[in-house]
Amino acid sequence: MYFQLTDDEKFYSKPDLTLEETGNFAYENALDFIALGFKPEKTKIIINTKNIQTLYPIAAKVAKKINFSNTKATFGFTNETNIGMIFYTSLQSAPCFIEDKPVLIPLGVDQDPHFRLTRDIAPKIGKPKPALIHNIMIPGLKGPGGKMSASDESGTIYTTDTPNVVKKKINKYAFSGGQTSVEEHRRIGGNPDIDVSYQYLRIFFEQDDNKLKTIYDDYKSGKLLSGELKAILIEKINKFLSIHQEKREKAKDQIDKFLFENK
Amino acid sequence: MYFQLTDDEKFYSKPDLTLEETGNFAYENALDFIALGFKPEKTKIIINTKNIQTLYPIAAKVAKKINFSNTKATFGFTNETNIGMIFYTSLQSAPCFIEDKPVLIPLGVDQDPHFRLTRDIAPKIGKPKPALIHNIMIPGLKGPGGKMSASDESGTIYTTDTPNVVKKKINKYAFSGGQTSVEEHRRIGGNPDIDVSYQYLRIFFEQDDNKLKTIYDDYKSGKLLSGELKAILIEKINKFLSIHQEKREKAKDQIDKFLFENK
Repeated sequence: MYFQLTDDEKFYSKPDLTLEETGNFAYENALDFIALGFKPEKTKIIINTKNIQTLYPIAAKVAKKINFSNTKATFGFTNETNIGMIFYTSLQSAPCFIEDKPVLIPLGVDQDPHFRLTRDIAPKIGKPKPALIHNIMIPGLKGPGGKMSASDESGTIYTTDTPNVVKKKINKYAFSGGQTSVEEHRRIGGNPDIDVSYQYLRIFFEQDDNKLKTIYDDYKSGKLLSGELKAILIEKINKFLSIHQEKREKAKDQIDKFLFENK
Repeated sequence: MYFQLTDDEKFYSKPDLTLEETGNFAYENALDFIALGFKPEKTKIIINTKNIQTLYPIAAKVAKKINFSNTKATFGFTNETNIGMIFYTSLQSAPCFIEDKPVLIPLGVDQDPHFRLTRDIAPKIGKPKPALIHNIMIPGLKGPGGKMSASDESGTIYTTDTPNVVKKKINKYAFSGGQTSVEEHRRIGGNPDIDVSYQYLRIFFEQDDNKLKTIYDDYKSGKLLSGELKAILIEKINKFLSIHQEKREKAKDQIDKFLFENK
């Protein structure tokens, strides 16, 4: 399993971030998935700037097969798009082609256009097409429509947030499917299908389908209030994070074992 | 002194060349200027693919300051240009910005647009603007208008050509300012100003201005025939190459000392 940490993409697209800052994002990401239990024998972290020696020759081959029209059609680039962004897709494709094996790429649907382009190119450079799995998109705290984005602090729970910060963010920002007053909520009931706290329980934090069903029904009937639903989520998140953050600390000594080595 | 050997530019622009083949061009180039006497203490060879670890973070910064419109205006790129070519200018700029010192770049005028762009970018990334010296363009064997290009074999003397090949190329391809028959040449005289053999003597091979003047006058008056002029050049080139090729052989053991090391 390769994890490509794109410490330069943000660098291209956010003029206010230094390479060091985006490098830190990559490092923090790495700690997270080491903490989640990936094994160093099977997992290699590719960091664009660190592994550019490996990626660049592949990207150079890929780049020859993509023209500006392709990137316009795929990403909506314009004449004002910077040339780093334009080139970037060839770098992002490179990990698919390090080995001659077919690869499987789990991705959010927003990344799909990119890898469709990669699939088109694969046969042109004599490599198997990567297969794609579309992962579910996690909604941002602020509700339906947006995805969780690391650059929107108030819309995102970070894996490094303290229990208090988590509590504050959920209570203040988590989009609610509840009614504006307790009375109305009891009468009409909430809408769990658009309630972000419920969605987080469904996607991540409540493993037990029966319990999830009870929460869904109680919320919908008005028996469970928004504040109570949020309290359930806050407790679940903080329980997860307290263990996760411990593992993250330990991961700091492990990270070298995970780094991809240029040949 | 940095020499940037762009083993990937050809790779981007020539679909029929492998990275290995363009790498060989870079290696052969390096042997040439080591043979010409550059000293390893003062000279570092930067090879794009080998030193990408150093160049890429700089190129990423540069790339953010150049958009597709800039490259269109500068290089005449179109929607069909591949994204490697589009990105390429930021890589070619990178050696100017490895250190914080002002740099001086000797270049053929055809490379001028590129470095004008580099000069525009320098202050935007907090670096001094590179200064440029325009070197004379060496005409191709086939005559005025073209420059010598490594990819046109019959228009180019390679530093690895044997004496016989040099003789054949000059006699067969070197554009002549002479007349179509000896009689006419004696009567009208030749035109040294467009004669490639004369130009090579002027630019490279005849250091003595008085001798050069005599050749010029004799050719112009018709006293010196085209074949005779070519013979002078052939002898000069082959004398130079026999020494140069010996030095190139010795350079093979030296090349490691010249390679730029990534930090």
